[in-house]
Amino acid sequence: MRKESVKVIIWGLGAMGKGMAEMMLKKQGFEIVGVVGRGAKIGKSMYDFLDMPKGDRPDVLIGAAEDVIVPGAADVVLLCTDSFVKGAFDKIKFVAERKINVVSSAEEMAYPKAQEPELAVEIDKIAKANGVTVLGTGINPGLMMDLLVVIFTGACESVDHITARRVNSLSPFGPAVMEEQGIGITEEDFRKKSAAGELAGHVGFAESIHMIGDAIGWKVEEVTQTMEPIVTDVDRKSPYGFAKAGDVAGCAMKGFGKVAGEIKIEMDHPQQIEPHLGGTDTGDYIIIKGTPDVNMANKPEIPGGIGTIAMCVNMIPHVINAKAGLKTMLDLPVPRAIMGDVRAMIEED
Amino acid sequence: MRKESVKVIIWGLGAMGKGMAEMMLKKQGFEIVGVVGRGAKIGKSMYDFLDMPKGDRPDVLIGAAEDVIVPGAADVVLLCTDSFVKGAFDKIKFVAERKINVVSSAEEMAYPKAQEPELAVEIDKIAKANGVTVLGTGINPGLMMDLLVVIFTGACESVDHITARRVNSLSPFGPAVMEEQGIGITEEDFRKKSAAGELAGHVGFAESIHMIGDAIGWKVEEVTQTMEPIVTDVDRKSPYGFAKAGDVAGCAMKGFGKVAGEIKIEMDHPQQIEPHLGGTDTGDYIIIKGTPDVNMANKPEIPGGIGTIAMCVNMIPHVINAKAGLKTMLDLPVPRAIMGDVRAMIEED
Repeated sequence: MRKESVKVIIWGLGAMGKGMAEMMLKKQGFEIVGVVGRGAKIGKSMYDFLDMPKGDRPDVLIGAAEDVIVPGAADVVLLCTDSFVKGAFDKIKFVAERKINVVSSAEEMAYPKAQEPELAVEIDKIAKANGVTVLGTGINPGLMMDLLVVIFTGACESVDHITARRVNSLSPFGPAVMEEQGIGITEEDFRKKSAAGELAGHVGFAESIHMIGDAIGWKVEEVTQTMEPIVTDVDRKSPYGFAKAGDVAGCAMKGFGKVAGEIKIEMDHPQQIEPHLGGTDTGDYIIIKGTPDVNMANKPEIPGGIGTIAMCVNMIPHVINAKAGLKTMLDLPVPRAIMGDVRAMIEED
Repeated sequence: MRKESVKVIIWGLGAMGKGMAEMMLKKQGFEIVGVVGRGAKIGKSMYDFLDMPKGDRPDVLIGAAEDVIVPGAADVVLLCTDSFVKGAFDKIKFVAERKINVVSSAEEMAYPKAQEPELAVEIDKIAKANGVTVLGTGINPGLMMDLLVVIFTGACESVDHITARRVNSLSPFGPAVMEEQGIGITEEDFRKKSAAGELAGHVGFAESIHMIGDAIGWKVEEVTQTMEPIVTDVDRKSPYGFAKAGDVAGCAMKGFGKVAGEIKIEMDHPQQIEPHLGGTDTGDYIIIKGTPDVNMANKPEIPGGIGTIAMCVNMIPHVINAKAGLKTMLDLPVPRAIMGDVRAMIEED
């Protein structure tokens, strides 16, 4: 087993970065060697922002990227700052050029060539030139609506049609998500903002659909998506959201992947606060029409926050072990929990 | 894309080998270059044993191993002859020494170090010495009660307890399986044969439990298993099996993996003919107690025959692409269907 701890820097101590820090502090063999933050956070202790006491651990002060991310400082940077490849690109380049591996939680980074093929080529080049691995992952995209679909197709002689459905609760999420999803606004406002491109909704259909298509050898010709308000019949209140009866409690998105002129991959992803108040049971579903059929349900859904935190941390050993370059979940061994010392999962070369 | 077809030899043209041949004949980029058989099958056409016409394809005559498996003859041998590592070992060695990769459907080969650690080391040595990859896979062990559990733990910050349940139908299986599982005998006979070790039942719990434990870093100290008859209240008839009311229609096995003195991994696998006649719905289930919980059901179950056929064929590209040595499903990228030309899945090095 490797003697040195697995050294990690967290870039972005929002809800995801904080959760990853707390998860790693509970594990054996990890060492958080730095946190990159901005503005007033700089100079403060990481522990000021965690729900865990520092205890006997050495302190970790939040710093600027230039000061924290230096060659040899860490094995991996967990980059928890962006949703889009364009936003994450400069930071990935910065880290890779300092010869440190990157795990990004940016949704588009789960399959960057879907939306940003040129940047994906560029990231691959930079990673290879610097001998490091770059991976984007998360619960969705990253697992529930794509990699899990792919693994089930592994039991199929042939596949005719795929539906991935994720019916989840937005209640645990904060104010940014409430705004992105249109929670609490009127149906009219929702439609206006949606038409104006002001509601992000779910980011990831293009990534999931292209990941599945490329994995099984379907050439995806076109990805389209729709967005509809989920209007509530009753008042719904979550820690950071409120929708009164008649207003919008969620955002229902669908995605469609066309292969040889036919819709072969469908994504169905209604997200809302307090779904039980609307009589909705949450869950993850995979329906494959093929030989054989697959009819999977996981109820309730894997929660988005914990799931993304776990996926990013759990992939760290695979990223350290991987060959240099831009990798996707299709390239690496299956994700797995880390219940022992993480150092035992690092291959000696 | 690679120009040459992916050349495959099938060793053993029973139900599994036949299914793999038929599957590959429907795909693009595969070429079945040889079949190894025994006795009266030698010299006959492979097509005499398939439910597919030869059509315009060149004939493939069944031959002895020495004649068919020669260096350069194929990329992969699909070895469909055994359930146990001991039985498969000499054949794997024979193939590897002729510099050809091996995919084995032997249940114990899915995680050979569980039951045969010394032979596993030996296979790894032979594979590396000859620059080839050896993989054991199938639907179970190989996916439903192990690799699929592992991928779900990837979404977990921590795992406390795992149950994998597979409730399946034996109706599609032939006379050998009916005998191994005790179908149609009396309860008294079942208990006698079981005590005498004359009923194979399911082979794979030790493999699945060790695969899960090693994946997530739980040291499995002991694997135990139990076998109980499924006594039917009504007559049940399948193509190759018959159990009259009061007799045995199936074999319910459970497996237990102990970690740090506690049962942490449980396998529950009742197999029977015509389960609906006993009021039993079939399905695959994964229940993880952890952060978060996982509560997956796939109903009905992925059929064992098709599933194993698909897994073995679908892993061929990963095996060709892998580094030399004995690999398990934990080491390779996730299995996936092959809906395009298989040659596009082969990495050029």
